Amino acid sequence: MPMSPEIEQRIARSFEAQGLMATLGARLAWVGDGEVHIAMPNSPQVSQQHGYVHAGAVTSIVDSACGYAALSRAAPEFEVVSAEFKINLMRPAIGTHFLAVGKVQSAGRLLTVCSGEVRAFLSEGASEYKVVALMQATMVLVRA
Amino acid sequence: MPMSPEIEQRIARSFEAQGLMATLGARLAWVGDGEVHIAMPNSPQVSQQHGYVHAGAVTSIVDSACGYAALSRAAPEFEVVSAEFKINLMRPAIGTHFLAVGKVQSAGRLLTVCSGEVRAFLSEGASEYKVVALMQATMVLVRA
Amino acid sequence: MPMSPEIEQRIARSFEAQGLMATLGARLAWVGDGEVHIAMPNSPQVSQQHGYVHAGAVTSIVDSACGYAALSRAAPEFEVVSAEFKINLMRPAIGTHFLAVGKVQSAGRLLTVCSGEVRAFLSEGASEYKVVALMQATMVLVRA
Amino acid sequence: MPMSPEIEQRIARSFEAQGLMATLGARLAWVGDGEVHIAMPNSPQVSQQHGYVHAGAVTSIVDSACGYAALSRAAPEFEVVSAEFKINLMRPAIGTHFLAVGKVQSAGRLLTVCSGEVRAFLSEGASEYKVVALMQATMVLVRA
Repeated sequence: MPMSPEIEQRIARSFEAQGLMATLGARLAWVGDGEVHIAMPNSPQVSQQHGYVHAGAVTSIVDSACGYAALSRAAPEFEVVSAEFKINLMRPAIGTHFLAVGKVQSAGRLLTVCSGEVRAFLSEGASEYKVVALMQATMVLVRA
Repeated sequence: MPMSPEIEQRIARSFEAQGLMATLGARLAWVGDGEVHIAMPNSPQVSQQHGYVHAGAVTSIVDSACGYAALSRAAPEFEVVSAEFKINLMRPAIGTHFLAVGKVQSAGRLLTVCSGEVRAFLSEGASEYKVVALMQATMVLVRA
Repeated sequence: MPMSPEIEQRIARSFEAQGLMATLGARLAWVGDGEVHIAMPNSPQVSQQHGYVHAGAVTSIVDSACGYAALSRAAPEFEVVSAEFKINLMRPAIGTHFLAVGKVQSAGRLLTVCSGEVRAFLSEGASEYKVVALMQATMVLVRA
Repeated sequence: MPMSPEIEQRIARSFEAQGLMATLGARLAWVGDGEVHIAMPNSPQVSQQHGYVHAGAVTSIVDSACGYAALSRAAPEFEVVSAEFKINLMRPAIGTHFLAVGKVQSAGRLLTVCSGEVRAFLSEGASEYKVVALMQATMVLVRA
């Protein structure tokens, strides 16, 4: 479904205001209606003790992707905050870069349920990927 | 229970190898038997769009605290990795600094269940805090 | 904290209206301010394939305990429904009877976060127990 | 993918040994490779206080569906038990009957991650449904 430029800009501005996303080297890769993608390169700054990407970095980008997916469906007078989420880390986060995909599953009056996944790519330009993490999240709409 | 210096050193070395913890400004604050604390100051580097600390940063430190709590009970030939966790973000992460507390609830042969919380302090030296997040996590022991 | 008889009766009436609780043989064991206990005997009706109590029965009583803990703190014009929960099944649910304990951890304007546990007792009258399951739940207040 | 009759029979025998499934009126509806369906009619026996189906009953059938999906991929010497799961109850469980669908998302050596959903149908023979619940579950393989 086509996105209104207003919503896309709203999400882009909010993303730029998230200091953590810059700290992690993440960027907003795609905004759709009810679906948002966030990309992050591998780097020593986001590693855990074995050199893989830390679960916390993986979680951060897919939490933001889910939040912005929810925001893409929210009325202009609402903001979105994460109420809770659950993530399964299915395999080590090995790769040159990662893509977090957040999707709205159900949008209620106050709560939006999203699912997310994080895809790991083994080289630049690769089209194949492995899903390294699965998220299920509850976002809450609050008046801005 | 007194910790063996070997275990404490093992956890400290592993923590230092987590690039993400340095990136977030986090430090290992306390290691006990089945309980580990990680501290993190507030900074623009870990913010979300409203200036509070991002759920991803909150999650990262309490995930590591839970993981190291599990490691404090693991036999030397095992490493610990996060299989999954769930976190409730109960209030905005507002404060000058934060303390993540991870505790072992049940240690099985392969899986260790931990609970965690993140405490927010409103000023340096404050003893009062608010719990801003609650985690329930499953850690898996893998041969090193 | 002393409970008002009105709240206790409100919870008792609601519990009696839950057909599933009768089907499982569960009974409301204790109601406090922000904490509710539900008891369930073991029986072939609630078993899984190895003869232990099914995760679904364990989950059902602790979900209800968490919901009623939230209701004990809710204003009279609100009902409580489960938005989501996560449960760790830490050991097989073996025992003659079980007690689900639900507690409010944080009560917001719309969302109440609860934690719960299920205790397994090996004989009638036993005071010792093992915690077989841990829950973390989000309850939502809706106008009645 | 075609299922071996041995696996299908193994799952059917295990399902019949789950007392709770009979208690809830549930039946094994379909077994595929990595995907299992369980059906349950609405009845006063599975209700919550407003007459809808209790979250615990909804959870029970989708937990079993996820467990059997995992079992359909397990080697013969392994059993499957639920380690943990998380469920979002997205709307009231209203309908004449329900179908729980469990699917394997990732099958590791010890842990299998599954996703599940529960579909509500408003009349017998209806093909349209609403998804009332989403589950993300971790199953653990244990030697039989």
